[in-house]
Amino acid sequence: MTAAMMTFPLNTSDILRSAALRYPKQSIVSALPGGQRHQYGYLDLLHRTSQLANRLSAEGVEQGARLATLAVNHYRHLELYYGISGMGAVVHTLNARLFSEQLSYIINHAEDTWVFVDPEFLPMLEAVADEIPSVQRFILLCDEAEMPASSSLKLECYETLLADQPTEFSWPRLSSDTPCGLCYTSGTTGNPKGVLYEQGSTVLHAMMSGSSQYLDFNEWSVAMPVVPMYHVCAWGVPFSAPMYGAKLVLPGAGLDGESLQQLIEDEQVNQAFAVPTIWLNLHNYLQSSGKGIDSLKMVGVGGAASPRALVQTYDKLYQVYWMGIWGMTETSPLATAAVKTPEMANMTPEQRYELQSSAGRPMFGVEIEIFDETGRPLPHDGVTRGNLRCRGPWILAQYYRGEGADKFVDGWFETGDVAVINAEGYLRVVDRSKDVIKSGGEWISSVELENAALHDEAVNEACVIGATHPKWDERPIMLVTVKPGKLLDEARLRDTLQQKVAKWWLPDAIIQVEDLPHTGTGKLRKVELRQSYKDYLLAK
Amino acid sequence: MTAAMMTFPLNTSDILRSAALRYPKQSIVSALPGGQRHQYGYLDLLHRTSQLANRLSAEGVEQGARLATLAVNHYRHLELYYGISGMGAVVHTLNARLFSEQLSYIINHAEDTWVFVDPEFLPMLEAVADEIPSVQRFILLCDEAEMPASSSLKLECYETLLADQPTEFSWPRLSSDTPCGLCYTSGTTGNPKGVLYEQGSTVLHAMMSGSSQYLDFNEWSVAMPVVPMYHVCAWGVPFSAPMYGAKLVLPGAGLDGESLQQLIEDEQVNQAFAVPTIWLNLHNYLQSSGKGIDSLKMVGVGGAASPRALVQTYDKLYQVYWMGIWGMTETSPLATAAVKTPEMANMTPEQRYELQSSAGRPMFGVEIEIFDETGRPLPHDGVTRGNLRCRGPWILAQYYRGEGADKFVDGWFETGDVAVINAEGYLRVVDRSKDVIKSGGEWISSVELENAALHDEAVNEACVIGATHPKWDERPIMLVTVKPGKLLDEARLRDTLQQKVAKWWLPDAIIQVEDLPHTGTGKLRKVELRQSYKDYLLAK
Repeated sequence: MTAAMMTFPLNTSDILRSAALRYPKQSIVSALPGGQRHQYGYLDLLHRTSQLANRLSAEGVEQGARLATLAVNHYRHLELYYGISGMGAVVHTLNARLFSEQLSYIINHAEDTWVFVDPEFLPMLEAVADEIPSVQRFILLCDEAEMPASSSLKLECYETLLADQPTEFSWPRLSSDTPCGLCYTSGTTGNPKGVLYEQGSTVLHAMMSGSSQYLDFNEWSVAMPVVPMYHVCAWGVPFSAPMYGAKLVLPGAGLDGESLQQLIEDEQVNQAFAVPTIWLNLHNYLQSSGKGIDSLKMVGVGGAASPRALVQTYDKLYQVYWMGIWGMTETSPLATAAVKTPEMANMTPEQRYELQSSAGRPMFGVEIEIFDETGRPLPHDGVTRGNLRCRGPWILAQYYRGEGADKFVDGWFETGDVAVINAEGYLRVVDRSKDVIKSGGEWISSVELENAALHDEAVNEACVIGATHPKWDERPIMLVTVKPGKLLDEARLRDTLQQKVAKWWLPDAIIQVEDLPHTGTGKLRKVELRQSYKDYLLAK
Repeated sequence: MTAAMMTFPLNTSDILRSAALRYPKQSIVSALPGGQRHQYGYLDLLHRTSQLANRLSAEGVEQGARLATLAVNHYRHLELYYGISGMGAVVHTLNARLFSEQLSYIINHAEDTWVFVDPEFLPMLEAVADEIPSVQRFILLCDEAEMPASSSLKLECYETLLADQPTEFSWPRLSSDTPCGLCYTSGTTGNPKGVLYEQGSTVLHAMMSGSSQYLDFNEWSVAMPVVPMYHVCAWGVPFSAPMYGAKLVLPGAGLDGESLQQLIEDEQVNQAFAVPTIWLNLHNYLQSSGKGIDSLKMVGVGGAASPRALVQTYDKLYQVYWMGIWGMTETSPLATAAVKTPEMANMTPEQRYELQSSAGRPMFGVEIEIFDETGRPLPHDGVTRGNLRCRGPWILAQYYRGEGADKFVDGWFETGDVAVINAEGYLRVVDRSKDVIKSGGEWISSVELENAALHDEAVNEACVIGATHPKWDERPIMLVTVKPGKLLDEARLRDTLQQKVAKWWLPDAIIQVEDLPHTGTGKLRKVELRQSYKDYLLAK
């Protein structure tokens, strides 16, 4: 029997063309440096993106070429997302929080030929200029008047590049597996690895993640991705929001509470997306300023565990639904979410907060499962911890250039997370598998211990790692930095911990340190610490 | 560069498994004969569908085999949709309104091996029993107690088939182009042609048509497809509603106003889908009974032009949003819809009704275009009429067994409709291209003339066809049947027409007839009438 339906691969350019047809005047608002705002509609976005694509074509940019961006969330970055991917090249988003050795490593690994850069990040490129021979063009994301007076690099102006180009472009029809985006993992162990997104996977991810199963966008949505476009594609919101006609509010570089409150109020933002710290800072600002966020109805929160107290605060003080989410660079990135359900209306607040602070359930198209060390699936009982794997059409099958092949097992992607799943399918990530402490055959979550320690008034940051133990193989030890002007009281800290975790989880040692090492994206460098402290308990 | 994302084709079984995980207790309510209601949840649906799939596998049903259904909308039919397609076979929905010669033609053309049939439709099969040698099994959709006492056919009972089968099934992972459904066109010209749906096209259609761009389903939806599951897959609602967690209300055979009002009220239906006649009948019932439909918020209406007066009635009397839609068997079937937009809040009621009674705009994934006779695209000015074509991943590329190849042109499907598109992208279908009257190089819409005639109090039905004319090539003539007890006043009818259409559209002859011929699905058989009346104006 012959297949009967059209072979018609959907492309990122279809998202933009559909948005320009259905929602031509829906706004894209960008906060620019100096408090300025830029505003235009989806039809304008299509026209300028077409100009960009025409210019790239005229310059001979080939299908599959990697063109990099180093920029915050604004309309020009959005034009690059669509213009580069739409004409068949690969938009490689460089993380602005990278250290320079990682930046040059990644640019070389990707063999980027162009870099589009915000003026504020130009010094990062100047610092590695001698180490990135593949880069032929440096394009400043500004107009002529804003170009830097001088630079060690030969700079071009983005607006000049676009000027005089036709506002229509003949978008190619690209196969589903044509690469369209590239993003590197943060590399807590070893070198960063590249995740190459495809036309088909990107469109499918936008279709489902923008639906009522996840971000729930429609023409009444005013969506603000605070999560950066320079990392994990701002959770795909630059694709899903236009697909479903949401107004987009791009916050630029101002991610402090005051800037965000102002944007939310001015633009009547009703859905916003960020890591927990952003929402803590906004809450603190609202408390000190007395200002409000009346338009805001939901926040999507991932990238770190959702603190229960903050979920409650956003519910009670601001009537904002906190939706816990989970995903990774390797999952496009959205996979699971704690969406609001009709059943929640009949729950106690505590029951609701429990669900909201979880990672939620997989959306259609994603499967998740937990496995033991031998690869057997584990029960979904809300208690049993296992190695989390996932699969689906927008989940990675191999890293760029074939690295990290051990992460792909039996058709699954090995996330490196340790998680529990309950009977209703809700996921709770409890730790990274390399960070979990294996004590006498049982697992102790470093993350849960670290979170518990933050309830002590003196603790600034805590880091829990496993140290070798003669009897239990490993036992947890806790390194803490202390808040300025506070004194660490170990007995009090142990009391605090004991209220939150099982007694046998309590660390064998609590050690005050001056500093804790972090990666460019703010994660603890536990590999180094484990190395330094591995014999600590043996020596003790 | 190698593709990097998982090759993971999504299947109809994924929809059911996801629904059972995310919405295990969400209800499926079925109205059964005799006023009974059946109710269970999506997890129950998965269990029973698994039993069915296990049984079909045990019986040796092979991938690609065509298993037919002849049934109204109820839970067993839903189990067949998922069970047959999920295990890799093809669910072939037989239209219960077919004449017997068409029924046997279609069964033979498809080479169906099993037929699952509602007891009420058994006589249709008994009548053609000698003409359908491919059918080996006749399964009655009822339990043992409801089995007919005798039949010329060897009958089996559906419930007996399922009994004792395991409630878990190992669903195969099927390639995107695996056929999963088959539906025949109504065949107004020539024999019906088969449209073979695929796993991938069916899932994509459900993803987008269930989203806020179209049917707008979520866990608060209570969706009632009145449009039959035995034709155009009930607009795909059996797939899109479970995907997005809607409660499903399946009305069985009772499509009269009283039955529908009762179901809407009892089950708190808020979204329902049917052709205009259904809504006219419901309105008439509500007016005569004084009953209400308070829970209903929107109706999706297609299959025929939306009468403006009814759009207004549903708005003003019932506060129901009337959403005009357009699609065909060949388009899976949904393509365009007049979804509610924020802009409508600032329109006059008349402006809104104009949009609501149109066919709306294409959802993401579907492209539409109008062309002249030479294949050149025409302007979107809301006035220019052209031949409507469409394309996209759930649009047909070839009919079953390669028939009707002339309908596929330059990568487009030639719909056979004549339409206008306005500057905002809204589609209005004005006629079937074979029915349009070409008078002096200009086009006259038979449908618009027919609709205008219905405003005359004596006209029961009108049919407009083109008759050969020595000067203008063709001119319209109108055949009318008259309501019982009324008299046709031709002068009054001409006055009525003149208020609705341009003067040069007025028919050259108005002819009262006793009867008008119809197809099995209720469409006018214009081919025959054109043949009979082609020389009418020459002879006159």
